[in-house]
Amino acid sequence: MTETDNTPSTTVMADTEMIEMVEVIKGKPVVPGVVYAPVTWVTARPALPEPTETVAEDRRDAEYEAFTAAVETVSGRLAARAEHVDGHARQVLEATVAIARDRAWARKVKKSVAAGQTNQYAVRQATEDFIGMFLKAGGVMAERVTDLADVRDRVIAELRGDPEPGIPQVDTPHVLLADDLAPADTATLDPSLIVAVVTEKGGATSHTAIIARQLDIPCVVATGPTLRSVAQDAPVVVDGGLGTVETGVDADEATRRVADAAALAEKVRAWTGPAQTSDGQRVQLLANVQDGATARQAAESVAEGIGLFRTELCFLSETEEPTVDEQAEKYAEVFRAFPEGKVVVRTLDAGSDKPVPFVNAEDEENPALGVRGLRIARGNQELLERQLDGIALALEMSGRTAASAHTWVMAPMVATVYEAKWFAELCHDRGLTAGAMIEVPAAALMAEKMMSYLDFVSIGTNDLTQYTMAADRLSSSLAYLTDPWQPAVLHLVHTTCRAGSVTRTAVGVCGEAAADPVLACVLTGLGVNSLSAATPALAAVGARLGDVDFVTCREMAAAALNAEGAEEARAAAGAVIGL
Amino acid sequence: MTETDNTPSTTVMADTEMIEMVEVIKGKPVVPGVVYAPVTWVTARPALPEPTETVAEDRRDAEYEAFTAAVETVSGRLAARAEHVDGHARQVLEATVAIARDRAWARKVKKSVAAGQTNQYAVRQATEDFIGMFLKAGGVMAERVTDLADVRDRVIAELRGDPEPGIPQVDTPHVLLADDLAPADTATLDPSLIVAVVTEKGGATSHTAIIARQLDIPCVVATGPTLRSVAQDAPVVVDGGLGTVETGVDADEATRRVADAAALAEKVRAWTGPAQTSDGQRVQLLANVQDGATARQAAESVAEGIGLFRTELCFLSETEEPTVDEQAEKYAEVFRAFPEGKVVVRTLDAGSDKPVPFVNAEDEENPALGVRGLRIARGNQELLERQLDGIALALEMSGRTAASAHTWVMAPMVATVYEAKWFAELCHDRGLTAGAMIEVPAAALMAEKMMSYLDFVSIGTNDLTQYTMAADRLSSSLAYLTDPWQPAVLHLVHTTCRAGSVTRTAVGVCGEAAADPVLACVLTGLGVNSLSAATPALAAVGARLGDVDFVTCREMAAAALNAEGAEEARAAAGAVIGL
Repeated sequence: MTETDNTPSTTVMADTEMIEMVEVIKGKPVVPGVVYAPVTWVTARPALPEPTETVAEDRRDAEYEAFTAAVETVSGRLAARAEHVDGHARQVLEATVAIARDRAWARKVKKSVAAGQTNQYAVRQATEDFIGMFLKAGGVMAERVTDLADVRDRVIAELRGDPEPGIPQVDTPHVLLADDLAPADTATLDPSLIVAVVTEKGGATSHTAIIARQLDIPCVVATGPTLRSVAQDAPVVVDGGLGTVETGVDADEATRRVADAAALAEKVRAWTGPAQTSDGQRVQLLANVQDGATARQAAESVAEGIGLFRTELCFLSETEEPTVDEQAEKYAEVFRAFPEGKVVVRTLDAGSDKPVPFVNAEDEENPALGVRGLRIARGNQELLERQLDGIALALEMSGRTAASAHTWVMAPMVATVYEAKWFAELCHDRGLTAGAMIEVPAAALMAEKMMSYLDFVSIGTNDLTQYTMAADRLSSSLAYLTDPWQPAVLHLVHTTCRAGSVTRTAVGVCGEAAADPVLACVLTGLGVNSLSAATPALAAVGARLGDVDFVTCREMAAAALNAEGAEEARAAAGAVIGL
Repeated sequence: MTETDNTPSTTVMADTEMIEMVEVIKGKPVVPGVVYAPVTWVTARPALPEPTETVAEDRRDAEYEAFTAAVETVSGRLAARAEHVDGHARQVLEATVAIARDRAWARKVKKSVAAGQTNQYAVRQATEDFIGMFLKAGGVMAERVTDLADVRDRVIAELRGDPEPGIPQVDTPHVLLADDLAPADTATLDPSLIVAVVTEKGGATSHTAIIARQLDIPCVVATGPTLRSVAQDAPVVVDGGLGTVETGVDADEATRRVADAAALAEKVRAWTGPAQTSDGQRVQLLANVQDGATARQAAESVAEGIGLFRTELCFLSETEEPTVDEQAEKYAEVFRAFPEGKVVVRTLDAGSDKPVPFVNAEDEENPALGVRGLRIARGNQELLERQLDGIALALEMSGRTAASAHTWVMAPMVATVYEAKWFAELCHDRGLTAGAMIEVPAAALMAEKMMSYLDFVSIGTNDLTQYTMAADRLSSSLAYLTDPWQPAVLHLVHTTCRAGSVTRTAVGVCGEAAADPVLACVLTGLGVNSLSAATPALAAVGARLGDVDFVTCREMAAAALNAEGAEEARAAAGAVIGL
């Protein structure tokens, strides 16, 4: 299958002196940016030691001394690293140091070694005992289990004389290559030393992608096993915007490309908004947030407002439903961050991968196709009504009543016209502006009829792609399908925009698609009025939009719609603007 | 929400003598047919007894005697029932009798009663011990666990003087009402006494629906809790075609409606095909089969051929992949059933709710959105190639080579144009006619481009509905969404048919939608060329099509497409032909 073929394509560049072989490995672009640096592979975690024969009595002291020396080396290395970082990363490292130096843990190891076990096996056993206790304690303690296992692996590797597992210590900028990154691996990722991340697995919404986006490190995921052909320390050009990793690139050429990209990045940094095409077609740039803190962060950026306030993320840890007053308090915090700007609140999108303890009970065979989003309110309308009351109250509390035309409320997982009508009535009863997420294919197909009841819609491209392609967005084996550049998805965006144009209804996009500057041009060309994405992604989108005129956006949209697949759509739209 | 409102609508029919109240409960229509009979509710299983104080020693003999008497009554009743049925039902009942009369089980009960336990608790404990042993033994033994629990419940109910749980014994025709039916409940369902089935839960593809369709018993599912308002023995009119249950209907009126329906049924029985509209627009009627036996059954019906041969159902129990020769043997059996007719073979649709042991390994978060259908072949092209070789070989074996234009091969879960192209190449390499299921929304949206590589397509309405509505087709809580009458689904059928008309590519429909006579008219009006459904459903579809002309079909299609929801679409299309 050509689409999924990840074997390197080889370009032979003829030269008078020599023939250079450039190999291009393709993956999914996640965070744009071009870098040129040697690679470093994540070091595999060591295999756990198995029990061996009893250690001779006269060797046991030496066995324990080797353990204390290894602990000293490991904790010293971590402590030194902690001194070079700040904030959360420092806390994570210091906590890990504390665990490595824990006396109770060392005593357990000492006891087992005294009884004749090898120090490696004693470390494994002592750690397992502690893990058991931590899990039993639950809560914050249980969260430390990953750190414990991390310390165990580092000490065991040290005892064996193996390299430290996890992200290797580097002193100069490197591109990090991995199968996939675990949360523990990424806590201390230093963007000045790890200048790009490339993984074999993962998708646009995988953990690696989310972290890379937060740290703004160029990132490519889902390259497939071809990535393994890249040797440790080989210099590569990573283009996070194109989703490519190239080996064998001439150093001068590579340096020029990095400089060009840096110039573009400079332009992005200098861009202050508001977003419009070069001929003045306005597009609202909005931020996706989840609470007061992220809303205030957005307010300090180029974001003109909030395009997606994910209310369920306020409540993921609540076992009981917050009262209307408690809810209003949380919502008002977000409203206050943008006293003048638009804020689009999405009602509880519980279910699927985001179960909320006080609403999701049942186990489902296919949670992504289950009772989630607005469907929960079908059997529990009071829950939704209390949330709408909370939003209305928050409006008053934050003094937004006068400007309430800027406060929009939308429902997730709307699938039928009846649901849209029902939700709109509940909102309108409270004087709220009502909309729906367009994330179920049926909602896009029925958008025009829905719009006779709704004041606006917002296309959620992540779920819309998942359902349109019938492919789990969290499955790394299906990342080749869950790409918002799939022409089928763009057709549904087009259908929705045409409906919006006929009925004069605002159509926004929230989701990863809005964070891709080239795709943002396509969406604008299709007729989308606002784009909402993670705050750090917005400036690059605005800068790109400012470089093209509206007719070009439409040409890019037409080229993408007419493509046979996602890769071709991306290439065809890019070709219109010379990419 | 009006759509999901199951409260009875009340029609007041004014009369000089009295005012009759007719209550209409709506559910999902599953098997058509109109009946008028009193209802009988499935009797609830008894609550399991809890341990009590020790039974006095002088009461223990009587306690055990009561147990043996109860066993005698229960087993005698089951044995008598076994005499009145044949085949599988008789085997099921006789096996249950054998369990009730099992000596080892009785000994266990006796021992516990002798130790002072109540006979009810002793029955529970003895049964639990046996269930444990059976589960440990696995295989056929483990399958008997349901029967054991059934015997336990019957004996405990008898000891308490409660009615026998499960389907009550009736002597005259009744309509069976239930929350939902378990497989064990349905083994002995006698269609001469249980003349209709109505359940609160379930969906068009639930177990109840499948059994009712097999037995051809009028059936309505997913009425919601309103059904509970129908009292035991109340006479009702069930219309399995409309999905309604009516109480309070005048007996004469009810009798007339049953007679009208019977006349229609007679017309269906007399219908012999081939299917065409009253003005001669041909529509091929084909059967869905899964092996040689079901194919031969189809050959004896009005089916002109096979529209869906589900090859994976041959292999559900295979732990190792059958060889090409073994596969060819199975396929040839199906080809031989229709030496002249069309046979559409679908390649392995493993995954999701149909895991095939030798291909599906991984646990998936959302199997319906996972690596299923053609996606499995992406990582294992040889598996697909061997199946295509098996199909090509079966063609030769069954002497179909000459008529091979009638043998079509299609892939399930095609989502991209690349996949369609790739599959078509593999088929064409072997001289096979290649098609794709249109069951992923993206496939419908990209149908025109896919058709430049494919020879035909077949719309799988069950999965297409599931993905278009983003609602699990097996979830009874979402049955209100997974209805092929959803206008959004019809829009995708329309898109596919328009593509077929532009590219002159045959478009079929296989799935529950093709079994609904009124929907079949709509599909014909949308431009579908063939309809494939379970064999027993075909004649009713053919008879209905013969009653309408093509322009009427198009009017019905337009009415349905223009509706806001599934209910409205069904009503609007029906209204065109006076339903």
